[in-house]
Order: sequence, then structure tokens, then C-alpha cells
Amino acid sequence: MGQPQARWNDRGATRQHVRNVRLEIILQSAARCFNRKGYQATKMGDIARELGVSKAALYYYVKSKEEIIFQCHSAALDVAMEGVQMAEALADPADVKLYVALRHFIEGMTDRLNGCVVLTEGMLSPRLYRDLVRRRDEYERRLRGIVEEGVASEAFAPCDPKMVVLAMLGAMNWIPRWYSPDGERTPKEIGETFARYLVRGLGQGGFHEHGSAV
Amino acid sequence: MGQPQARWNDRGATRQHVRNVRLEIILQSAARCFNRKGYQATKMGDIARELGVSKAALYYYVKSKEEIIFQCHSAALDVAMEGVQMAEALADPADVKLYVALRHFIEGMTDRLNGCVVLTEGMLSPRLYRDLVRRRDEYERRLRGIVEEGVASEAFAPCDPKMVVLAMLGAMNWIPRWYSPDGERTPKEIGETFARYLVRGLGQGGFHEHGSAV
Repeated sequence: MGQPQARWNDRGATRQHVRNVRLEIILQSAARCFNRKGYQATKMGDIARELGVSKAALYYYVKSKEEIIFQCHSAALDVAMEGVQMAEALADPADVKLYVALRHFIEGMTDRLNGCVVLTEGMLSPRLYRDLVRRRDEYERRLRGIVEEGVASEAFAPCDPKMVVLAMLGAMNWIPRWYSPDGERTPKEIGETFARYLVRGLGQGGFHEHGSAV
Repeated sequence: MGQPQARWNDRGATRQHVRNVRLEIILQSAARCFNRKGYQATKMGDIARELGVSKAALYYYVKSKEEIIFQCHSAALDVAMEGVQMAEALADPADVKLYVALRHFIEGMTDRLNGCVVLTEGMLSPRLYRDLVRRRDEYERRLRGIVEEGVASEAFAPCDPKMVVLAMLGAMNWIPRWYSPDGERTPKEIGETFARYLVRGLGQGGFHEHGSAV
């Protein structure tokens, strides 16, 4: 392990590109460690071991565990925003837009980041935490916008958009708790199944409370 | 605070009943602290302060933070199982059963426990952790049973029952991350809205992927 660079093994690419790719691999491995052992219990040494590089090589790319968890969540939010942007640019009805936004986030987050550990306030300095919360709130607001658009256009049944968006976020944010890259479902399958289910819940028709016990 | 007993303030009830009620209040306050500060950062002293009792009074009921987190999750699983049992006893179609099971859990968990902090493996001794996982797996299996019954009876569209149950669990388990007893929605409203949305997602008809971008 004296020559950590030798272990990264990538050829012919611009420096910035190599850096980005390596950073993504670091985030992916770190997320795996966090999800397995918990954030508190995971040490930088565990992440380096998971990557098969030395701690020195790891520190060349990231300063601290705090930076890693911030970058993990920041990358997940980038994927989320990408999805919502793609959706907003479509001329399709709200149900298709919502499907596109959710599928993109779920598939991308699962595939590229193995999901990511659940963030709690104590993990990050207040400044970094606020930055993520601000972007997360924006994402939530834009998803809610698509839901409201769908209710207005009658693509969706009347609902409480704030609550249903929280239900969607919960379903998606929970994925890292059970997802394994060795599992039976691919990120693509998970993305499609979840997005379909979460969009259908908003549909016109379907279940209404009735029956003896409700 | 020299006389902690004086602060509990309950009269005329059997000893066991008083003990149970107090334990539930402890779990509720502890869950609030965990959700606010994170489990690791919360000390027994914080929970005692939240309750307005001395640490000695708190230790009279629970031995440790580990016991509290175990009891929190155990109580949440009791509520979950109660709901699924009620549902299984009904003669109604699967959509009604599922609605009853989910609503009972969401409303009960939110109302009685303020939800509960997300459990990670490191928090508990392996034996206690395994015990919770065993019961959680049973809950998951029984919810899946209702979904499969609904698919078989065509109350629900064909789906991947394992995935949709994981989506439901995620939506529900995420509630503690945003729920506040001072928020605008009551536990009853949250239970109804979530259960309706999560059951509808399984319905026949409704959204199918289509449109230019899918």
C-alpha cells in the first residue's frame, strides 16, 4: 500500500475527470460503510479499506468524514434536482412528469451512490447542514409543484400535496436502508417500480375508504 | 427536584398501570429528544430534563438509553402488529384491510410515540437488535401477505409486493423525521392521508407509463 496511486487504476482522462470519478467511487464506498456500520462507528480507515487504498490516498481527495457525508448528500440532491428539472421541461401531463422526476432520482441515487446514509443534524456543522436543508426544501417544493399542477389539471385526485410529497420522500430516502448492490432488483427496476407506485397513489379513481371497519 | 415522585402527578391507578403510562411518557419524551438531537448526542440527563423529572426518577423506570431505544421500537412494533391483526381479522377486501393496517400504525406511532428515531445496528446489542429485526420482518411479511391477497383477488393491480411494501415502510418510517406534535396535521389526519395514498398506489387503473419521455 506504499503507492496508493497505483491502486486507482484509471488511464487517459483529464485530471478533473479522474478526480470526479474517484470522488464518486469514494462516496459510493463510504455510503456502503455508513449504511453497514452506522456513520458514527465508521472511521476513515474503514472507508480506505473498503476502497482498497491507503488512508493517505483517501485524504488526498477528501479532508474528513464530514466532507464525505456532505458530498454524499450533495450528490444525491444533484441527482434529485436533475430529475425534477428534466420533468419540468416536459410538455407531458403531471403524472408523466412526476414519474420521470422520481424514477431519475431513485435510479440515479441507488446506482451511483448505493443510496446514502440518513442525515441527522449532529453529523454536520450548522453551515453545511443548512446548505443541504435549503436544497432539500427546494426539491420538496418543486415536487409539490408538480403534484399541485396535477391536482389542478385533474390528472390527480384532490389530495394534501404536502403530506403525499413527504410520503414519497420517505419511501425514497428509506431505500439506502435495505438496498444492496448484490440484491435481486437492479436500480432501474427499483426506480420504475417505486415511481409507478408513488405516482399511482395520486390517481383519480381507485381506492376510497369504505367497508365495515373504516 | 429532591422528590422526583412528586412531579409525576398521577392519582388512583394500579401500580402496573401507572408504570405503563409512565413508561410510555418516557418513550415519547425520549423519542422527541432523539429526533431533535440525534441518538448518540442525547444523554439520559436530556431525557430527564425533557420530562421534568430527576435522573434518579428516570432510572427508576429504565436502566439505560439502550433500553429506551429498544422499548421505543418494541412499542412501535406492537402498534404495527396490532394494526395488521385488526386487518387480518376483517372480512373486507384487501384494499380495506391494508388501509386499516397502515392507518392504525401511522396514527398510533405518531400519536403515542412521536414516531421514533431511526434504528441503526450499532445502537443495540446484537441480541436486542435481532429481536426487533425478527419482529420487523414478520410485520413486513404480513403486510406483503395482504398485498399479495389483493393482487390475487384483483383488488390490486399486478405489482412487485416486496418492493411496494418497502416503499410503504419507508414512507411510514420517515414520519418521525418531520413530524412535530405542534405541526398543522393531527396524527389522525396523517394516518388517513398516508394510508389512502399508500393503498391507492396499488389500485387497478390509474397511471401507466406513457408520453414522450418515458
